[in-house]
Amino acid sequence: MRQPAHGGNLAWAAALAGCPPDAILDFSASISPLGPPNSAIAAILSQLGNLKHYPDPNYSELRLALSHFHQLPPEWILPGNGSAELLTLIGRELAQLAATTLITPAFGDYYRTLAAYNANVLECPLSLVTGHWSLFLDKGQKTKDKGLLLNNPHNPTGKIFSRDSILPYLEQFALVVVDEAFMDFVPPNEEQSLIPVVQEYTNLVILRSLTKFYSLPGLRLGYAIAHPDCLAKWQLWRDPWPVNTLAAAAAIAALQDAEFQQQTWAWLPPARNQLFQSLAEIPGLQPQVSAANFLLVESQESTSQLQHQLLKYHQILIRDCLSFKELGDRFFRVAVREESDNQRLLTALNSVLSGK
Amino acid sequence: MRQPAHGGNLAWAAALAGCPPDAILDFSASISPLGPPNSAIAAILSQLGNLKHYPDPNYSELRLALSHFHQLPPEWILPGNGSAELLTLIGRELAQLAATTLITPAFGDYYRTLAAYNANVLECPLSLVTGHWSLFLDKGQKTKDKGLLLNNPHNPTGKIFSRDSILPYLEQFALVVVDEAFMDFVPPNEEQSLIPVVQEYTNLVILRSLTKFYSLPGLRLGYAIAHPDCLAKWQLWRDPWPVNTLAAAAAIAALQDAEFQQQTWAWLPPARNQLFQSLAEIPGLQPQVSAANFLLVESQESTSQLQHQLLKYHQILIRDCLSFKELGDRFFRVAVREESDNQRLLTALNSVLSGK
Repeated sequence: MRQPAHGGNLAWAAALAGCPPDAILDFSASISPLGPPNSAIAAILSQLGNLKHYPDPNYSELRLALSHFHQLPPEWILPGNGSAELLTLIGRELAQLAATTLITPAFGDYYRTLAAYNANVLECPLSLVTGHWSLFLDKGQKTKDKGLLLNNPHNPTGKIFSRDSILPYLEQFALVVVDEAFMDFVPPNEEQSLIPVVQEYTNLVILRSLTKFYSLPGLRLGYAIAHPDCLAKWQLWRDPWPVNTLAAAAAIAALQDAEFQQQTWAWLPPARNQLFQSLAEIPGLQPQVSAANFLLVESQESTSQLQHQLLKYHQILIRDCLSFKELGDRFFRVAVREESDNQRLLTALNSVLSGK
Repeated sequence: MRQPAHGGNLAWAAALAGCPPDAILDFSASISPLGPPNSAIAAILSQLGNLKHYPDPNYSELRLALSHFHQLPPEWILPGNGSAELLTLIGRELAQLAATTLITPAFGDYYRTLAAYNANVLECPLSLVTGHWSLFLDKGQKTKDKGLLLNNPHNPTGKIFSRDSILPYLEQFALVVVDEAFMDFVPPNEEQSLIPVVQEYTNLVILRSLTKFYSLPGLRLGYAIAHPDCLAKWQLWRDPWPVNTLAAAAAIAALQDAEFQQQTWAWLPPARNQLFQSLAEIPGLQPQVSAANFLLVESQESTSQLQHQLLKYHQILIRDCLSFKELGDRFFRVAVREESDNQRLLTALNSVLSGK
């Protein structure tokens, strides 16, 4: 079986660990350990009787729920079969420009979607300066005919860009796509989403996911926020019923589940902090500061070797960074999970790295 | 609200009928009334705990189940988010040819997907000759650089093309796409699928749906059967997890549910016959012979007027044919449903048409 280019490939991991997929403790997929919320599961159950009908092609109820949640008119919001489906539409849009500036290391699916439409890609690497990832866009570069694709918080580094630092790009680039797949993990008083300014820019596209925060990657649900003309055009590029009935219902319930949201924001910062501190104490490992629900960790040892040993001896899956060519074999990424799981990871890492 | 271009738009119908969507008796969507099978619902329930994991991007289990079902190697099968998602990939493929010959009247989404990639479309109408729909392709036409897109059984006419009548097109056209969305309704001893010959042709694509026969349009599940090189290319044109976990599980269960399949084949032919005979007895209506789970009906009265009256006075939704420009306001389509529902339709039609 091929080495997976995405986290969360449990079939691959289970084959390597010699155990069933559900025996794997998965730190490779950046999914919240708290969900799915009961409200979402109840909504799924309530809709089983409606599977014999086609979904509403306008997704009116879902758009209305998203509209309330973000205080935006519904026509500015387009639901999709996971944000990955919308990313493909965006790839087609970006391919019509002279080139797309891609902040790297970048999520592998960005390359896939840009290649799918033969888009020109200009890689712009983040630099690790005194332990912090920084972006230096070439000021002399002609950008008016180009697109910019970045994610915020950034995957896999965990870096968060301030809203103010992104705004100038909207003046410089023909189209700016900000993938905010992990923004909902940032507590409201710290978040840097561009959603509050989207109605001021016709060249801004924001991509959001509901599958990470609400732990529903198997259900497929994301949405794009952009000018209605842009969304209406994309609608003609894809099939009429991309979102399944159960995902639409689960999303509506999840968006209204303020208790689950509060619980997540209360859990993540201290849990991440604790995992960060404990990883920093392991000789040879250097975790990076992160605003998201994962940590990128620099390692003095080969991380693919580490990954295989963790799988074989501890049934623990971490995300190697081989698919991020700027990072290679000296970085790995782990999700922040619940305390007992994080502890199991730390014990296993200590054991493998000390050669016990 | 806009007049829907597809069947099954219950939100639109309910607004017109002044009732909740689930009070509408829906004859417009060509979905089996017998499902979903209990086996599929049980499979969905069994997978709720797995929603927190990404689907297997190879869909190995699902492909294996389809492989067993069709006696084909798994690499010849590509699952999709409903056959509509795969149709979009096929549209991109067809757009690379000089033109695509489209058998009309055609499913509206064929035009959408061909337009999405600016494909040239050559319409080739079926002709109604002594009560039967016949296809006359211009023999002099240059076809070696063109694609052919047809569905079998044909929607909305219900006509079935014999396998032998399609085989010559595989020699004539660069690519032949046969949408067999309704083929599983044809009992095994009468079916005309091209699946048994697919491995003999690199220019044949077969599209299948699981949502109609198993009554799961809300879940989104279809698949394409074609040469592995072709499918591998399409895989790069779309996101890595198009099929949600619940749909994949439901499909595997449904494919193995021989009892449900037998039940459907035992129900449909006599039910369709009975509905056909009863419709033929209503003055002004002329149903057409059909191999599928729906009947196209020619009407002496305006069918949009009929549709509105059936909705308003009987909460019954039939499919007008305004979106099929060759048919217009003198045809409508109805699904074959269970006997008591069919009877309700007949009573309502009699009542509206006799002006009672």
